[in-house]
Amino acid sequence: MIDTVSFDEKNNRLLLIDQTKLPNETVLLSLHTIEEIERAICSLQVRGAPAIGVAAAIGLAVLAREIKGDYATVVHSYAQRLKATRPTAVNLAWAVDRLLAGPQDAESLVYQALKLWREDITTCRMIGEHGSTLLRDGDCVLTHCNAGRLAAVRYGTALAPIYIAHESGKKIHVFADETRPLLQGARLTAYELREAGVNVTLLCDNMAAVLLQSGKISSIFIGADRISANGDTANKIGSLGLSILARHFEVPFYVCAPFSTIDFDCEDGTKIPVEQRDSVEITEMWYQKPMAPGGIEVFNPAFDVVSTENITAFVTEQGVIAPQDLSQYFTC
Amino acid sequence: MIDTVSFDEKNNRLLLIDQTKLPNETVLLSLHTIEEIERAICSLQVRGAPAIGVAAAIGLAVLAREIKGDYATVVHSYAQRLKATRPTAVNLAWAVDRLLAGPQDAESLVYQALKLWREDITTCRMIGEHGSTLLRDGDCVLTHCNAGRLAAVRYGTALAPIYIAHESGKKIHVFADETRPLLQGARLTAYELREAGVNVTLLCDNMAAVLLQSGKISSIFIGADRISANGDTANKIGSLGLSILARHFEVPFYVCAPFSTIDFDCEDGTKIPVEQRDSVEITEMWYQKPMAPGGIEVFNPAFDVVSTENITAFVTEQGVIAPQDLSQYFTC
Repeated sequence: MIDTVSFDEKNNRLLLIDQTKLPNETVLLSLHTIEEIERAICSLQVRGAPAIGVAAAIGLAVLAREIKGDYATVVHSYAQRLKATRPTAVNLAWAVDRLLAGPQDAESLVYQALKLWREDITTCRMIGEHGSTLLRDGDCVLTHCNAGRLAAVRYGTALAPIYIAHESGKKIHVFADETRPLLQGARLTAYELREAGVNVTLLCDNMAAVLLQSGKISSIFIGADRISANGDTANKIGSLGLSILARHFEVPFYVCAPFSTIDFDCEDGTKIPVEQRDSVEITEMWYQKPMAPGGIEVFNPAFDVVSTENITAFVTEQGVIAPQDLSQYFTC
Repeated sequence: MIDTVSFDEKNNRLLLIDQTKLPNETVLLSLHTIEEIERAICSLQVRGAPAIGVAAAIGLAVLAREIKGDYATVVHSYAQRLKATRPTAVNLAWAVDRLLAGPQDAESLVYQALKLWREDITTCRMIGEHGSTLLRDGDCVLTHCNAGRLAAVRYGTALAPIYIAHESGKKIHVFADETRPLLQGARLTAYELREAGVNVTLLCDNMAAVLLQSGKISSIFIGADRISANGDTANKIGSLGLSILARHFEVPFYVCAPFSTIDFDCEDGTKIPVEQRDSVEITEMWYQKPMAPGGIEVFNPAFDVVSTENITAFVTEQGVIAPQDLSQYFTC
């Protein structure tokens, strides 16, 4: 499979798999203007916290190479526009800021963007290796949204442990929540797991409770868009409910994420901004006909925040970390 | 608004609002063959436990009037076929059995079916009156699926208290779960509340947790497909999860249903059969294109069972009853 995000250095293009077209079509986008890159992030052609971080970094490098005129001003304005595309995922701002922290000529940005890209692959692989120690042969794992290879460059976060366990010959069966409203579980998680030969069963989000009650699920693995210093975790809408059900049915609940997802400046979950998205995602993206009365009021938060006490452990590139140990990793 | 289910005595037809066409079109079905009536129940053109009970009763009366030949054998075979259409809702079998318990000539069945139809209206109105005492002016109520007028002849069960409160001038705001996979909340609940002038906000099922966490919701009202003798309640898939969240966030959880929904022969929830429905409901009923990889395995139970300990009270035509008092109403 091709990488979710990559850099075509020769033609100076950001390459992305268009995730709005999956699973029916595999379209590779080749972008080089600020408008194209903004639109790709806002419209979720690229999504998943690690992937949008790398995409923004490569995007900024591509843009920098083409600036004519007042380089410093323009590069900063591009950086600000990219950071504003989505407010919740911290990796986006983190990646852009990392590029701006060093020398800011175009070739230095290219070097840094490629370094970030390589690091993402290594980091996800390490998350997978640490997380796979939590999986036994025959386990059934529940996941929500898509935190797989399509949410990063390769491997992903929540699905990385499953890929590594699968590579090592363990048989893992994944149950994937479809994840309304944009169906990332149905469209992306079910798709990429099947491509990789992992057994997968799709369910609606509201079926997770009866599935957990059945005793079939050994553990839940999700990704994260932002983790606050105390361990409260913003992730795709529905994660909060799932964590409460996991606790009720005593099923371990793991959050898989690179350290770049942890925002040590953010004290707790109440400080994480949550993006509200357009109501048409809920009312009109079915059948071709509206599936709700026209003009109906809609509640459509893109994320919710899992309380740190409902999290069994964080799976990171540095190992499996209990929520109460997270603060030990805080470096000013 | 026209009644959800009615009897055109002059032309001997069962009349149903086709609920698969809402909210885009209001189509009135006029049925008189066993195949049409079976299909209407199986394909959810009529759905909601009280409505399918009344529809099956009127349907049997319509069919009985047209039998030529071996009346007794044919009427019993029709009764069996109607009872087999959907396994979970107990009202269906209860209504058919009530017709068969008396004299079985066609005109007696017509008389009984009309009596059931009138009783449904009275019963739902009484559920509404008892339930409205639980609502204060300004309350925000969360509901799941559709247990409104479209699930009965008029008024409904879970929404009856809201209609009665609304009639009496209390301002109630309803939050409606869209209810995957068939979107009864988006298509039916949002539609009928808006028609009635009640404020309504639509959300995806997985957004209920963050909504409850916000403290905005004063109570949850749902319907029921079957209540066992101990109070365990089968209802639309997603109800179990919602009841656990309600308990976690200390929000009262009310089950509204007529006494005919209580199956005193059914000891507890583990004895309630749960219908599994077709995977295409999850994989293919969006956009016009499949929204999941072709042939993917799917988990699609139509119902789950809320434990009696998560239910604050049952709202019935005889009043508001605590779960532990349910057994007092058991009459052999």
